[in-house]
Amino acid sequence: MINLSPIGFVHNSVKENPARDFKWENVISEIWLKEEYVPALEGLEGFSHLLIIYYIDKQPRPVSLKVHPRGDQSLSQVGLFASRSPTRPNPLGLKLVSFIKREENSLRVQGLDALNGTAVLDIKPYLPGYDSVHGAKVPPWSY
Amino acid sequence: MINLSPIGFVHNSVKENPARDFKWENVISEIWLKEEYVPALEGLEGFSHLLIIYYIDKQPRPVSLKVHPRGDQSLSQVGLFASRSPTRPNPLGLKLVSFIKREENSLRVQGLDALNGTAVLDIKPYLPGYDSVHGAKVPPWSY
Repeated sequence: MINLSPIGFVHNSVKENPARDFKWENVISEIWLKEEYVPALEGLEGFSHLLIIYYIDKQPRPVSLKVHPRGDQSLSQVGLFASRSPTRPNPLGLKLVSFIKREENSLRVQGLDALNGTAVLDIKPYLPGYDSVHGAKVPPWSY
Repeated sequence: MINLSPIGFVHNSVKENPARDFKWENVISEIWLKEEYVPALEGLEGFSHLLIIYYIDKQPRPVSLKVHPRGDQSLSQVGLFASRSPTRPNPLGLKLVSFIKREENSLRVQGLDALNGTAVLDIKPYLPGYDSVHGAKVPPWSY
């Protein structure tokens, strides 16, 4: 068993699970980190984008090993690990966000797809040469 | 407190922490998932790249809120969250890997930067339109 503790929490206007076509990319969130982590944020301003790992505890759903891609019931089910469904054995969310600004222990970001109150577990700088690849292939039912 | 359980473990030839200039991108690893997750892997073959979230428990290091970028002592220290150092409050590793093939509950991948025996917490398909962005900026001391 692995034990983790939140490093901070998400504050935004999305209080409950929105409709499937909700535009998360427009949502502005603030991540309030524990004050003890202020020194660990130094230098973050140099990055335009961040990767946020969070715990999907505000929208708990039972684990489901087969899911409809993007929740679209008209598509055949696929394996959970071939999807980004939140119904995972370890409900870890991962989202690339635009980093707007920092004020002390608060990070303002755009595009985080997490509900208000969500526990944040890690923040990593997005490094294009390390975190992206050209020509990656995805199946037609993906997006 | 958040409790997670490994979904599988890494098998490769890297038994202990290598030198800083070690070429992880050449390492072939097999991720052996618990047999119960075989149905959850269906459809994964359509993706050329995966994102692996793992627990950095095989190379434990004390949390350090200030680090030298890329471990390079000649560079000034920056905040931990502005780096990919493993000395994180929640030691979660995140790596984009090439997906070579699946055999039942075993995934062969290239480029995973985790030691042999590392616990894997989640596997997500890499979706270029969701997981990458053009024109991201990083500071000069980054890479």
